[in-house]
Amino acid sequence: MALLIRNGTVVNDDSMSQADVVIEDGLITAVGTDLEIPSNVERIIDAEGRYVMPGGIDPHTHLQAPFMGQVSCDDFYIGSRAALAGGTTMFIDIVLPVKEETPIAAYKQWRQWADPKVCCDYGLTVGITSYNEQTAEEMAELVTPEYGINSFKFFLAYSDYMLNDGEFYHAMLYCTQLGALARVHAENGLVIIEKEKELLKHGVVGPEGHTQSRPEELEAEATNRACVLASQANCPLYVVHVMSKGAAMSIARHRQRGAVVFGEPIAAGLATDGRHYYSEDWSHAAAYVMSPPLSRDPTTSITGQLHLTGTDNCTFTKQQKEAGRDNFTKIPNGVNGIEDRMSVVWEKGVYTGKIDPMRFVAITSSMAAKIFNIYPKKGRIAPGSDADLIIWNAEQTRIISASTHHQACDFNIFEGMEVHGVCEITISRGKIVWENNELSVGEGSGKFVPLPTFSPYCFATMPQRAQDGFMQAPRAVQRDDSVNSSDDPMPIKNKLLGNI
Amino acid sequence: MALLIRNGTVVNDDSMSQADVVIEDGLITAVGTDLEIPSNVERIIDAEGRYVMPGGIDPHTHLQAPFMGQVSCDDFYIGSRAALAGGTTMFIDIVLPVKEETPIAAYKQWRQWADPKVCCDYGLTVGITSYNEQTAEEMAELVTPEYGINSFKFFLAYSDYMLNDGEFYHAMLYCTQLGALARVHAENGLVIIEKEKELLKHGVVGPEGHTQSRPEELEAEATNRACVLASQANCPLYVVHVMSKGAAMSIARHRQRGAVVFGEPIAAGLATDGRHYYSEDWSHAAAYVMSPPLSRDPTTSITGQLHLTGTDNCTFTKQQKEAGRDNFTKIPNGVNGIEDRMSVVWEKGVYTGKIDPMRFVAITSSMAAKIFNIYPKKGRIAPGSDADLIIWNAEQTRIISASTHHQACDFNIFEGMEVHGVCEITISRGKIVWENNELSVGEGSGKFVPLPTFSPYCFATMPQRAQDGFMQAPRAVQRDDSVNSSDDPMPIKNKLLGNI
Amino acid sequence: MALLIRNGTVVNDDSMSQADVVIEDGLITAVGTDLEIPSNVERIIDAEGRYVMPGGIDPHTHLQAPFMGQVSCDDFYIGSRAALAGGTTMFIDIVLPVKEETPIAAYKQWRQWADPKVCCDYGLTVGITSYNEQTAEEMAELVTPEYGINSFKFFLAYSDYMLNDGEFYHAMLYCTQLGALARVHAENGLVIIEKEKELLKHGVVGPEGHTQSRPEELEAEATNRACVLASQANCPLYVVHVMSKGAAMSIARHRQRGAVVFGEPIAAGLATDGRHYYSEDWSHAAAYVMSPPLSRDPTTSITGQLHLTGTDNCTFTKQQKEAGRDNFTKIPNGVNGIEDRMSVVWEKGVYTGKIDPMRFVAITSSMAAKIFNIYPKKGRIAPGSDADLIIWNAEQTRIISASTHHQACDFNIFEGMEVHGVCEITISRGKIVWENNELSVGEGSGKFVPLPTFSPYCFATMPQRAQDGFMQAPRAVQRDDSVNSSDDPMPIKNKLLGNI
Amino acid sequence: MALLIRNGTVVNDDSMSQADVVIEDGLITAVGTDLEIPSNVERIIDAEGRYVMPGGIDPHTHLQAPFMGQVSCDDFYIGSRAALAGGTTMFIDIVLPVKEETPIAAYKQWRQWADPKVCCDYGLTVGITSYNEQTAEEMAELVTPEYGINSFKFFLAYSDYMLNDGEFYHAMLYCTQLGALARVHAENGLVIIEKEKELLKHGVVGPEGHTQSRPEELEAEATNRACVLASQANCPLYVVHVMSKGAAMSIARHRQRGAVVFGEPIAAGLATDGRHYYSEDWSHAAAYVMSPPLSRDPTTSITGQLHLTGTDNCTFTKQQKEAGRDNFTKIPNGVNGIEDRMSVVWEKGVYTGKIDPMRFVAITSSMAAKIFNIYPKKGRIAPGSDADLIIWNAEQTRIISASTHHQACDFNIFEGMEVHGVCEITISRGKIVWENNELSVGEGSGKFVPLPTFSPYCFATMPQRAQDGFMQAPRAVQRDDSVNSSDDPMPIKNKLLGNI
Repeated sequence: MALLIRNGTVVNDDSMSQADVVIEDGLITAVGTDLEIPSNVERIIDAEGRYVMPGGIDPHTHLQAPFMGQVSCDDFYIGSRAALAGGTTMFIDIVLPVKEETPIAAYKQWRQWADPKVCCDYGLTVGITSYNEQTAEEMAELVTPEYGINSFKFFLAYSDYMLNDGEFYHAMLYCTQLGALARVHAENGLVIIEKEKELLKHGVVGPEGHTQSRPEELEAEATNRACVLASQANCPLYVVHVMSKGAAMSIARHRQRGAVVFGEPIAAGLATDGRHYYSEDWSHAAAYVMSPPLSRDPTTSITGQLHLTGTDNCTFTKQQKEAGRDNFTKIPNGVNGIEDRMSVVWEKGVYTGKIDPMRFVAITSSMAAKIFNIYPKKGRIAPGSDADLIIWNAEQTRIISASTHHQACDFNIFEGMEVHGVCEITISRGKIVWENNELSVGEGSGKFVPLPTFSPYCFATMPQRAQDGFMQAPRAVQRDDSVNSSDDPMPIKNKLLGNI
Repeated sequence: MALLIRNGTVVNDDSMSQADVVIEDGLITAVGTDLEIPSNVERIIDAEGRYVMPGGIDPHTHLQAPFMGQVSCDDFYIGSRAALAGGTTMFIDIVLPVKEETPIAAYKQWRQWADPKVCCDYGLTVGITSYNEQTAEEMAELVTPEYGINSFKFFLAYSDYMLNDGEFYHAMLYCTQLGALARVHAENGLVIIEKEKELLKHGVVGPEGHTQSRPEELEAEATNRACVLASQANCPLYVVHVMSKGAAMSIARHRQRGAVVFGEPIAAGLATDGRHYYSEDWSHAAAYVMSPPLSRDPTTSITGQLHLTGTDNCTFTKQQKEAGRDNFTKIPNGVNGIEDRMSVVWEKGVYTGKIDPMRFVAITSSMAAKIFNIYPKKGRIAPGSDADLIIWNAEQTRIISASTHHQACDFNIFEGMEVHGVCEITISRGKIVWENNELSVGEGSGKFVPLPTFSPYCFATMPQRAQDGFMQAPRAVQRDDSVNSSDDPMPIKNKLLGNI
Repeated sequence: MALLIRNGTVVNDDSMSQADVVIEDGLITAVGTDLEIPSNVERIIDAEGRYVMPGGIDPHTHLQAPFMGQVSCDDFYIGSRAALAGGTTMFIDIVLPVKEETPIAAYKQWRQWADPKVCCDYGLTVGITSYNEQTAEEMAELVTPEYGINSFKFFLAYSDYMLNDGEFYHAMLYCTQLGALARVHAENGLVIIEKEKELLKHGVVGPEGHTQSRPEELEAEATNRACVLASQANCPLYVVHVMSKGAAMSIARHRQRGAVVFGEPIAAGLATDGRHYYSEDWSHAAAYVMSPPLSRDPTTSITGQLHLTGTDNCTFTKQQKEAGRDNFTKIPNGVNGIEDRMSVVWEKGVYTGKIDPMRFVAITSSMAAKIFNIYPKKGRIAPGSDADLIIWNAEQTRIISASTHHQACDFNIFEGMEVHGVCEITISRGKIVWENNELSVGEGSGKFVPLPTFSPYCFATMPQRAQDGFMQAPRAVQRDDSVNSSDDPMPIKNKLLGNI
Repeated sequence: MALLIRNGTVVNDDSMSQADVVIEDGLITAVGTDLEIPSNVERIIDAEGRYVMPGGIDPHTHLQAPFMGQVSCDDFYIGSRAALAGGTTMFIDIVLPVKEETPIAAYKQWRQWADPKVCCDYGLTVGITSYNEQTAEEMAELVTPEYGINSFKFFLAYSDYMLNDGEFYHAMLYCTQLGALARVHAENGLVIIEKEKELLKHGVVGPEGHTQSRPEELEAEATNRACVLASQANCPLYVVHVMSKGAAMSIARHRQRGAVVFGEPIAAGLATDGRHYYSEDWSHAAAYVMSPPLSRDPTTSITGQLHLTGTDNCTFTKQQKEAGRDNFTKIPNGVNGIEDRMSVVWEKGVYTGKIDPMRFVAITSSMAAKIFNIYPKKGRIAPGSDADLIIWNAEQTRIISASTHHQACDFNIFEGMEVHGVCEITISRGKIVWENNELSVGEGSGKFVPLPTFSPYCFATMPQRAQDGFMQAPRAVQRDDSVNSSDDPMPIKNKLLGNI
């Protein structure tokens, strides 16, 4: 049975025009004007005046995640439903091994949690929270199709998780061989620990201490460091939750010199800011606690070079946040976003004239699909692509609120924000799962999407770069050779790559 | 009758993978794996180990152009043949009204010259070399489908052509209304005139005077100025022939702040440099004379943010260059490029690991198609697109030389350069026109391609931006109003656009 | 008869320490600890807890200036008294030839106005409002000791005054020969004229039109252009009234590359901003009208690289401002500052911890003395220097107000601002002229200070730079020479000067 | 008995003019024109056509230093003599505690080595090579006048010396309290260790491995990190041996934002480059081994913002360098410079027109005196200053060579360089110690100069900055307060300091 969407403006990341879309068996089968109505059409949707776009891909979530003594309250069922309600049809969750857990053990745990519950497609990234020979062996296994992992996440902060620079560099060298992307949480953890001690000693115990202990300069610093180390390792890098202008500028500088590095702003950072940490209402302030913290500079959202947007969705209830009532370092870190990301990005991007709908598709969907190597299966409206798409009404508005959202948390950091752009219909795996403000989807209806290594978008230039003496290959001078060595065996022109 | 290309790696600007391509009636009709062989197949090309890519689009040529007392020696026949031999299947030529000629008169002249001779598809941009009410009226006519113009070119240098800042700004305001892109030749013409006088007075009459009279700082300055004025006029801007790092950095800075501006490096600037102006062989030195001059900094090719590549192909024979034997200001300006651009960009980009083949397609073809609003008809390998494509062998090499090129000029500025990437087959309008180093194409077989206004890629954000008080709309304070005006009616956050 | 200042902290631009100061016959005769009390001491001032600093030098004023159909209301008597009350003991006024007036004629007129009235020392800069052979001849005369001019001011805006780029460049080449500094008002005048027309056409006639017609991007653009042209002319450049971040950044970029360029923020720009243009009180809004306008970005004051601070003091009464009641382009441009500059800079610089008192002295006094070649006669507390100094109380505060200031205008743009730093005593030419909030000074007691050319601070590197082939000297290739020319006669390493 | 220098051009960092100088009892007693000849004049030097300048201060040496299993071959006698021969009259040496040695014990050892041998004045900086409570206690003692230490040096590389980020930050917080400057060796040590292992594993054992193991990106990274941490600790920072453009740009960026950070290029970095590491002559290549390595980019010397110049003089003979014949990580690190620095800086700065003689004095002498809080006792020619000065002939040239230098090492990294600027006479402590290419100075004639804490040049703004909520002081929200907290208790405008 087929589904036909008519008269909408179909938007991909490279073009937009009025066209019809036919969906059959979970796939898009035709896109064009004047398409014949397939004989097996079950439903015709009139998308006149609407945008028809690829469903969102949220590249960064923590559903049902054990973290700081709690488990985040959006489980894979509730979280994935909320995603669909907001126009997101796939997400990539982070597997986070704890204590002595090995990466593969954690991966299996995550699959066990997710597979029976998830209502839309999803993939996984595995966190590397300690690094040794066994870890390396398991990384090599995880990148096989059996496991479907093509990225690892590293931490430069959080004492339980962070690697030092030597380990991080070494692990990235290894990622390069595996064809796996390195993702990084970039803050200077050791200095943050010192700051936390200072603040607690001075009696600063409330959520304002969270932002004071994590100045955005420490995020910018670690971001720059991660970019430098990744270039040294010839490894593509993906910086999660870019929260401050300084961090964004670091990335922009490295991009300008030709580095393969991606920055991921998140919905929270685009639409709210760190002044909330000074709220006199402790619960209100604590609700915004995440790391890196929201920027204290309210103009930060309008920043730098944006490649794709995530959420770092990791929600805790007010009750859960109470764990840090007397000590900000114990407030579980995390905020919502998986549901509202699409509206927030539209509002701050398209509605203000900063970006056009094509770029909206790029940063909410296509770029993630390219980076994680599932494009054009995901992230594009074209024959043969998965039928994950949305019908978007840019004339409609809604007010974001915890009282109406579909997430499990009892607070919404965007509370009261009016957005001029609303997802009317979500289609996941070829089925209408959100329409008329109603979800119709079954637990476990989503599938795990294995992510193949060596994404061309990340790795296509790496072999050539590795041959470049400057970047990579150890090169010895033959001192007993009778032929004279050249004056300048490492020509500087190769240092600054630029975009050509 | 159909054509089938098998086993190649099909590259678009967003993805690359092994696939077959079917061509019928000048169009691509199928792209995929395991395609059935159409019954009407006339020819099957085995592209194993080759890249199958959209044919190049050269966005900037001057064929058969009257300029500085000469007519450039590549006419529309020879020039377009040379393009095809190098893998370029479309070009956009610049109509340049002289003296009292009006834009429409010049346009008609150009069509009359081009249409009977051109061997591949082409479009036109019209130069606005003086600006008054009549010009404005003709601009409005030229953007109608009858004429098919969607961009105008402005000059900030050349005393015969240049507008002052007030005129240029006003004309761009007008372009915004028409949905036409502003293209600009950016150098500070008035200062160059002073420099030329100084140099001639000091006895510097040779081609070295050309570079001394046009320091690249004057290009960077004018580029920055053009970007500022375009932003003020809310008009998308396209800077032709970006020749120096300073100019590229200007563009990068404005892009970073959200401006809709595109920079066009050219083949000459990517592969050679201004040291040639000091050659002791006058003819050799004169052969490189173009404006802005090639950078004196040999590392300049590796620079900045590149959006697409052109050539400014405008060739003169040694004999023609002799016009300036005793006075460098009289050497006709121009160099070759239309044939070798594809190889040069591949060599400097892909072969060195700076970019991957997808980005190669973007900067040689797709981006031009998007900017000039003919995408995905041109610039993409997809069902429904024009069958303008090439089969590229990255394992093969060739040596560029005037003795083997297909252009009319008796000099090649890339003489002796070895390139690791060769166009084996060119298909234009569905026909094989270049194969086994042979051209088979008839005079006038190409078509004029009307370019529609309001390219979404350039204009989609403009209406929203115009509503922003800061950028655009005049806004009066109502001083007798009883309601208080806001403290800050022009919020600064809208000033820095960023990419979001 | 001598004056002794004891126990103060003597601050120069290079050091600060507790010391006593002896003054005799208008000169400082001793500075040190444990100085003997001279036998002829008339007065001993106890400066315990105070700073003893060089009197301020305001490098940019327009007293008694005919401008836009009015004459600025602070004449040389009132203006110079106000200067002394605020701690400024010297100023440099701008001679502005009108219409057909020649530079020398205007200079003479200015001397005639100033000499009988001025109460403190002063110097002059001559504006070059048209440029031709006669102008050039008079410039050469003005730089002789008889006239004492070592700088000329150029305008890139104001239709009555502005030069085009060719003239400006040529005039700066000439300044280089004369050893005279080029000062520039940097805004893109031609575009502003277009903007003014647009706005008036749309009914925007109030002071808000002033800021809308002069976006700060047009200041940044012209500033960059002026820097480029000055470098091309090998001429030191001084940008008056740097009002926006963009302009400051332009200067910083050129400084970083080694250009000899100075930026002059003014008191108004450091302490107030352009939101006032939207006041509903027309008189209030009009009072802030100056060019370039105050920045719309309230964070702009905290910006860039600051070399010295001026005021552009050019005051008009409310009555005078009424001339533009119905048309913002007719509001006489100008604001106050000569009296309050010292307090404003202290407040925004030292009180906030951005700069220390040594740098305060540098940017309010010493740097001006160095640039205008009268250091250490002015701008330093040292034996042999002029006894122009102030005693500053950083513990005291005052509220700035038109009701208490000493200027002629009936409005103060800093109205209500509290400053933590007050001039208690001003000594001019060895005499106490301000004490206990009282001025005691006679009309005409100040002197004209001739300013010698070729200030080492501006010109010392210029001869070496001129020999550098890249920058300057025309260089011909000898093409019939049998010796081979070098490959690279203009080495790029000389292009980027840096600070070494 | 007095010494009179006549007719020279006296240069200080703020001015230059023809004047005479009188010296008595080790002090400058008069500077001026038409000075009377003192009755006790012993010698009159005619300095016609010469510059009379403050003697150089080399802020960074390692004389007689135990390092990497060797002791650097210039001891305090030979090293200080060489300094005087080149025009340097004071140096600051680095005390480097080894293994279990405490800072005070090392300090005492250094004094014991230096005091009997040194021929010119000198001061000390103490390295903090491990950090714990005892270290902190000893730091507090070292800053007392008894020890005369006002700076500590930290290492981010060298496994024997380096602190981690938490320790480094904590130690800088402590320095802020002590009024002591933090100096830092900035390279990413942990990554370098990984790189060294990789290279040795691949058989790269020669000196080229040194540069390959220490890419300049790792210097730039660590420099940026050190700047960020110092700002967080509100501590002034001094980056020793800035070797690459990237590191210089990091410093420039932080300076632009108002940070109190100083960068020290060294003579080696200004005049030679890292291509030597690829020499086929092992001894030649090894002679250049120092850390960070000389830049592979030969244009690096011309870079960034320069505050003062040092040498890191730490010389080893060819024989000593042999220790690393089979393993580059064992080549003792260090090069010469103490003798040639003044000539090298003049050549690269003044002779090329990049800086003038005033700035030469600033970067070779006055700035060091200011930073280390001994100005104007040192670093200035003025009555009361120490008679440490030089007579400089800018018309004379010399060729630098190991065969003529006065250092102990048998190699000179500037071998064969012609310099246009020669020190003719050096006066140290009022005595002529270098004249006619002859040294006349006795062992132990120099003195230890205690360096007082809280240099105003470094610390004057710190108290104000510490009060700024953003930078420093922990600030708790009073959540039971009935008064509403402000919305924005940490205004962003204080974040970007700028220079005002």
